[in-house]
Amino acid sequence: MDLHSALRAGLPRDAVLVDRDLLEPYSRDSAPFCPAGRPSAVVLPRTAEQVQHVMRVAHARGAAVVPQGARTGLAGAANAADGCVVLSTTAMDRILEIDQANRLVRCQPGVVTHDLAESVAQYGLCYPPDPVSREVCTIGGNIATGAGGVCCVKYGVTGDYVLGLSVVLADGTLMRTGRRTVKGVAGYDLTRLFVGSEGTLGVIVEATLSLRPARRAALAMLAQFRGAREAGDAVAAIVAAGHTPSALELMDRTTTRAIADLGHPLLARADAATLIVECDSADPAGELAEMARLCAEAGAVHVETARDGARSEQILQARWLIAAAMGQVMSTMDGNPTAFIEDVAVPRSRVAALVDEIEAVSARYGLYISATGHAGDGNLHPVVLFDQDDPGQVRRAQDAYDAIMAAGARLGGTITGEHGVGLLKRDWLRRELDPAAFALQQGLKRLFDPAGILNPGKVVDLSPALAEAAHA
Amino acid sequence: MDLHSALRAGLPRDAVLVDRDLLEPYSRDSAPFCPAGRPSAVVLPRTAEQVQHVMRVAHARGAAVVPQGARTGLAGAANAADGCVVLSTTAMDRILEIDQANRLVRCQPGVVTHDLAESVAQYGLCYPPDPVSREVCTIGGNIATGAGGVCCVKYGVTGDYVLGLSVVLADGTLMRTGRRTVKGVAGYDLTRLFVGSEGTLGVIVEATLSLRPARRAALAMLAQFRGAREAGDAVAAIVAAGHTPSALELMDRTTTRAIADLGHPLLARADAATLIVECDSADPAGELAEMARLCAEAGAVHVETARDGARSEQILQARWLIAAAMGQVMSTMDGNPTAFIEDVAVPRSRVAALVDEIEAVSARYGLYISATGHAGDGNLHPVVLFDQDDPGQVRRAQDAYDAIMAAGARLGGTITGEHGVGLLKRDWLRRELDPAAFALQQGLKRLFDPAGILNPGKVVDLSPALAEAAHA
Repeated sequence: MDLHSALRAGLPRDAVLVDRDLLEPYSRDSAPFCPAGRPSAVVLPRTAEQVQHVMRVAHARGAAVVPQGARTGLAGAANAADGCVVLSTTAMDRILEIDQANRLVRCQPGVVTHDLAESVAQYGLCYPPDPVSREVCTIGGNIATGAGGVCCVKYGVTGDYVLGLSVVLADGTLMRTGRRTVKGVAGYDLTRLFVGSEGTLGVIVEATLSLRPARRAALAMLAQFRGAREAGDAVAAIVAAGHTPSALELMDRTTTRAIADLGHPLLARADAATLIVECDSADPAGELAEMARLCAEAGAVHVETARDGARSEQILQARWLIAAAMGQVMSTMDGNPTAFIEDVAVPRSRVAALVDEIEAVSARYGLYISATGHAGDGNLHPVVLFDQDDPGQVRRAQDAYDAIMAAGARLGGTITGEHGVGLLKRDWLRRELDPAAFALQQGLKRLFDPAGILNPGKVVDLSPALAEAAHA
Repeated sequence: MDLHSALRAGLPRDAVLVDRDLLEPYSRDSAPFCPAGRPSAVVLPRTAEQVQHVMRVAHARGAAVVPQGARTGLAGAANAADGCVVLSTTAMDRILEIDQANRLVRCQPGVVTHDLAESVAQYGLCYPPDPVSREVCTIGGNIATGAGGVCCVKYGVTGDYVLGLSVVLADGTLMRTGRRTVKGVAGYDLTRLFVGSEGTLGVIVEATLSLRPARRAALAMLAQFRGAREAGDAVAAIVAAGHTPSALELMDRTTTRAIADLGHPLLARADAATLIVECDSADPAGELAEMARLCAEAGAVHVETARDGARSEQILQARWLIAAAMGQVMSTMDGNPTAFIEDVAVPRSRVAALVDEIEAVSARYGLYISATGHAGDGNLHPVVLFDQDDPGQVRRAQDAYDAIMAAGARLGGTITGEHGVGLLKRDWLRRELDPAAFALQQGLKRLFDPAGILNPGKVVDLSPALAEAAHA
């Protein structure tokens, strides 16, 4: 039986796409620079049993399977390989259980993150992780990439909420990991191993997530500084004073100008670095007043503190305008402009130094680079704009991207805070990890997927030459 | 060269113990029922290099190495095997760095948990995890066992604070994992894999731990109920109302009576189940008043809310008297009485049901069993008292222990919330995990320690028959 017939034998008719036009959108996620192949088929299973069927068919044939969520990833982890089966979990979109007494939710992987948060909110509960793509991205993708977000600075990342998983392994076996209890240390932590594994170890078909009590009403503040260094000093002072804001976001001068050009009413100073602070403590007004004082001491040239929810919303809005602002800048560029979004994390105290390095990289390569991100976590997302039809610019953009990661590493950081490795940073992973750790990463991949059919080539490179180098 | 000479070749003279009298205390941790052998030597290295030397010597000879902290563990994970090398990390007791700006601490594994907490407190920072043995247990042991504690209900467990590790692998290779940044998703999470691995995958020689701002002053409350069911209703109401107390501890009627008999002044009703609630929010008095109201609604027969730190301390003291109270009960028993401390976690809403089951087990086996624990986490520690010189009682105690774990499993729980698997629950691990998960646990052990020299026999049983059963 051919692959397509075999897949159809255990799936609903509309769950197997083979038409070339239909396959096209499934070939890549949102990362530039990453190679993407043409899938042989896209399957859209609705149940764990159907995923098991797909994996059994693929396993018997040695066919590659690329698990996929909403393709909002920025590292190429969901990109198709030529001839592979793309396994989209987007049709597995049911919330299976909301357990109020135990503050947990059980759901399929294709549930959209924002929908999950809205659903549990009706029970007075909160699922905090808020990646910027939360309106479209899925819980399965969030777990597979170890997604972060804006409120992580107070509430942690996706992985902190994963209690248990059901996973279909490479050979089609269904495996449960983890628990429904708050605590548990029964054996090695397989659940955590799947967080950030980008579909290379198994296909997540169900997740049990812990929840928190509803968040209190928040207030926001906006503070502007001459440059990132002063803003960084303010961040350090806020942290040192023991505050735990629910957002602590930095926009460098370039980003601030772009958003001001878009007409945001509150960015009084376009030529400034901007901090956006949100606080949802028991006394947000009092705590924001203290943080405003710390910002002033750090040299803020303008501080605006919201007294109500509407003004807070307006302040936070600036942070959500970054994509639109970059789009506006690109509309003024020649050729075929595109944006490359980077994801470097450094120790919190080095954020300002990283912004300086990024400005230097921008000057050196003659490229528009803005720097923005989660200052409270030390996690920046520089945005590099370039004309993808201009080979010289493409090369310079790639070099700039490398230079930014190198700067992050020099500052004691990591190559990826929350976007993952995928294809994009696979070579960089070998540079970040020491050889023994890299060899064990390869060993883990081989243990879970001996035939190498699950999202091959993502996260760790298994090529023998590299493996030998790592062992040497 | 014989083993002892080879060990001495790379270690200070006083770091190798071979005298039988000196070895004796290192043969077992604090778990009853678990077999313990006689070590060939105990080594007390002070540096990572010295640990590497020990592992290289052992690896070359195929000698078993049992890593050990303060031996406060309750699962036999640190018990010696006959002829093994016990590697105690207690002499690696230096704090290497406290980074205030980035809220982290870097230390050797032998630092005592309480000492670490005191040291970072001088910088206005807090390391929350508070296992009951915190005055003597070590950070390395806490990480290796995945230790919990009393304040986990608000602040999480040890594993939530581990950012990065340095580990010496079975062959003596030094490996770094993790990061110094708040976020990071570079490759599979090796750091988390070592949490709870009980020295079976590598020897932790350094840890980078995240810290929090100092905790606010707390107030405590004590509420007594006719039975565990009413106390459980109060816990459910407190959780449902969105409160996050920093301790939410339950003592059943048996425990309450034992502590009252010891003369604790606040246990007005000895014939009652007792809840101890601590709150360190911005408004602890206001929040405790609300929780007191919820306790009254759930049928509390007595509520005492502290208005100051001294009274709070007195209330919390009751929880720390459990061991003394059990000691007092044992002093009235015939023969050679001992205590077996269990560690079952169930979904929070099932705690009262678990207490009922434990009372039934106590009646069925005719044994004194008290139930106490972290109600807010659903994690109970029944204490089974028995005469270890009476074979009939020993057998009944073991059966009772099995019956309690079976009850926890029936209620949707796990065999261990925070004490770990060790030798004690190795057979139960196979019952809790599904066959595919168990087979992967075996695979992980083989990947990290192909020669099987690191704490052999702990956590996962590698015997071929079991491995085949798991694959079947």
